Amino acid sequence: MLQDLDAAMEAKGVDALIALGDSTFNNPELLYLVGCSIPRGGIYVKRRGQAPFLVVGETDLGSARLGRVRCVKSFGELGYYSLLAKDAKSAYIELIASVLGEVGVEGKVAIYGRHKANVILQVTSALQQRGLIVIQEDSPTLLEEVMMTKDDKEVEGIRLVGEAACSVIREIIEQLKSCKHEGNKLLYRSQELTVGRVKRLLKTLLAEHNLKAVEEPIFAPAPGSYDPHYTGLDSDPIVIGRPIVFDLFPQGGEGYYFDVTRTISIGTPDREFKRMYDDVFEAQQVAFDRLRSGMPAKEAMNIACEVFEKKGYSTPRTNHTPKQGFTHSLGHGVGLTIGERPYLSLYSQDIIVDRQVFTVEPGLYDAKLGGVRLEDVVVMEGGVARNITPLEKILIY
Amino acid sequence: MLQDLDAAMEAKGVDALIALGDSTFNNPELLYLVGCSIPRGGIYVKRRGQAPFLVVGETDLGSARLGRVRCVKSFGELGYYSLLAKDAKSAYIELIASVLGEVGVEGKVAIYGRHKANVILQVTSALQQRGLIVIQEDSPTLLEEVMMTKDDKEVEGIRLVGEAACSVIREIIEQLKSCKHEGNKLLYRSQELTVGRVKRLLKTLLAEHNLKAVEEPIFAPAPGSYDPHYTGLDSDPIVIGRPIVFDLFPQGGEGYYFDVTRTISIGTPDREFKRMYDDVFEAQQVAFDRLRSGMPAKEAMNIACEVFEKKGYSTPRTNHTPKQGFTHSLGHGVGLTIGERPYLSLYSQDIIVDRQVFTVEPGLYDAKLGGVRLEDVVVMEGGVARNITPLEKILIY
Repeated sequence: MLQDLDAAMEAKGVDALIALGDSTFNNPELLYLVGCSIPRGGIYVKRRGQAPFLVVGETDLGSARLGRVRCVKSFGELGYYSLLAKDAKSAYIELIASVLGEVGVEGKVAIYGRHKANVILQVTSALQQRGLIVIQEDSPTLLEEVMMTKDDKEVEGIRLVGEAACSVIREIIEQLKSCKHEGNKLLYRSQELTVGRVKRLLKTLLAEHNLKAVEEPIFAPAPGSYDPHYTGLDSDPIVIGRPIVFDLFPQGGEGYYFDVTRTISIGTPDREFKRMYDDVFEAQQVAFDRLRSGMPAKEAMNIACEVFEKKGYSTPRTNHTPKQGFTHSLGHGVGLTIGERPYLSLYSQDIIVDRQVFTVEPGLYDAKLGGVRLEDVVVMEGGVARNITPLEKILIY
Repeated sequence: MLQDLDAAMEAKGVDALIALGDSTFNNPELLYLVGCSIPRGGIYVKRRGQAPFLVVGETDLGSARLGRVRCVKSFGELGYYSLLAKDAKSAYIELIASVLGEVGVEGKVAIYGRHKANVILQVTSALQQRGLIVIQEDSPTLLEEVMMTKDDKEVEGIRLVGEAACSVIREIIEQLKSCKHEGNKLLYRSQELTVGRVKRLLKTLLAEHNLKAVEEPIFAPAPGSYDPHYTGLDSDPIVIGRPIVFDLFPQGGEGYYFDVTRTISIGTPDREFKRMYDDVFEAQQVAFDRLRSGMPAKEAMNIACEVFEKKGYSTPRTNHTPKQGFTHSLGHGVGLTIGERPYLSLYSQDIIVDRQVFTVEPGLYDAKLGGVRLEDVVVMEGGVARNITPLEKILIY
């Protein structure tokens, strides 16, 4: 949690943080530290034990003042435009130096945020030339560790995005159910229903719920769903009895994500598929029940693998790159990204602790039958997992 | 253009490129080099004069094979999972080393793509430890220079996004025009029309046109539009005679963006506002007419400033951080981002050349009257600017 930042800096002997970016958009570290959306980003500096300082372009002052940093200045106030007039190439680096001088940064500095590789390298060498020590952190960095646990406001933010996302899934399922059947096809407004049509409707519903599909949602009919990242082609038909992996991972207005998957079928799928579904359901329930704070995250992965292996499926334990069976990890953290710690994977070094929010998403994949995945988001509280995904699990509609 | 890559490497004495990222999403450099969307990113390596090599996770093999890199391997094929089992912390860095060995990289290496600062620093020091020289480039890097000009397919990609974006704007305007009036308010389905309602409709239309509003679109009624980045609050009412800055910058399916702004008013605005509008219109026309390949990009900015200064407005030339008048730059490149070179700003060091695609967007801002901005996208062809924005400019509807 953000309130742990100073303690984490202390523990790692870091005297100051700098976070950079040309936008807070898809720059979760900068977004986290400033607490608001800044279209053209900025320079965030914080000395240990002191209030942070933020510098943004003049046009972003209004946006930046909506965030959590009290001391916000503009590029102009720090002399950026005179620096530009003097030497446009070095102006940004000189501006950073000027900000560090203003804040009185000394000693060991850690750099965060996303930027182009050449900018990170330039800033690093400029800091070093000024006598600062730029810390080279392994992952998880101290900021990743801070961000790995969520405070009440963050959990509530994620939960609200989840509520809206689950409503959208339910509305799509209602639409599928209301389609007429013609042979093994579904008809929507007298036309054959395709993935393209569903996705258009899906994107409209997301917009209506103020959710953003930052990356393409997955609506993948079998057997294409055999590839966990197959998102479904617009031309794919929706066929009765052919199950669909429906994975939605939208972002809400404040930047928080949710990530939920259901596997659904209009009409009854093969009996073998049904068995695969039940096995995934069981693995997820076992994982929910046995998740405990204090447990290594890889242990959760091992629990799911055990369930699957007992039933004869391949897993990443039986084969590093299984072509079928359980072919991915059990889950990942959810927050301002959908790919953060803790990682519930075989080689994860993360520990499950209270206030983490992550997915539990076992899946089984078969080249002929397609894929099954069930994914919920849980928050660790009082040592156990609380599911914050308000959506039933029904295979056959 | 991508076909210039080897020549650009030659000119800068670069022996090999590496591009990194945990997704191609919002990682324009990686997206550009691989030519397809890869959900979890990858490692791209190219030696000068040779075909590139790409390594991705097993689940992304299908996605990666849709791109332009012929030689694609999986993490597993490069031994990643054995590296993970041996030492999870160093596995990613060891994987990169293994890829470089596979490709036979030697000499001077440049790193591209976006990643967390700590990953960039780790990779850099790992390369240096292996005897490679990591080049520290100022902006524009060689890849920025290559990306600054667009080939026919890219121009067409941008143009198509523009066509769809302009249709969306036209549809919104039609909706505004069809609203009933009650006093100075507009009624939509018997309810007072607000920015929130317009934006919901806008997002639905974008989804229907397969466009993504990656960042919040601007639909900003006066006087809030005085701040060029004010996006409009959901609760802002649409009032007759109060003009709106409508700035749309969506991304299409292939990753290309468009960026277009119109200033519109339902009913007649103040006469002073009308004059401001005409002055912005004139500045844009003058810029269109006088843009020439070979011209320094800052010269285009100077041309717009001259028009405004003659009419008595402040510009960034008369005051580094003007509070009113023309308060921003004239334009920026458009491609896989909406913030790339060439920059048409006062201190730009870019040169306008054929095949660049960029915005021309003069604006005037007044604390009482609000803002006017008109923004079109042009492509430089045969030495002059061709406007690829199929949308009329009408202030009063």
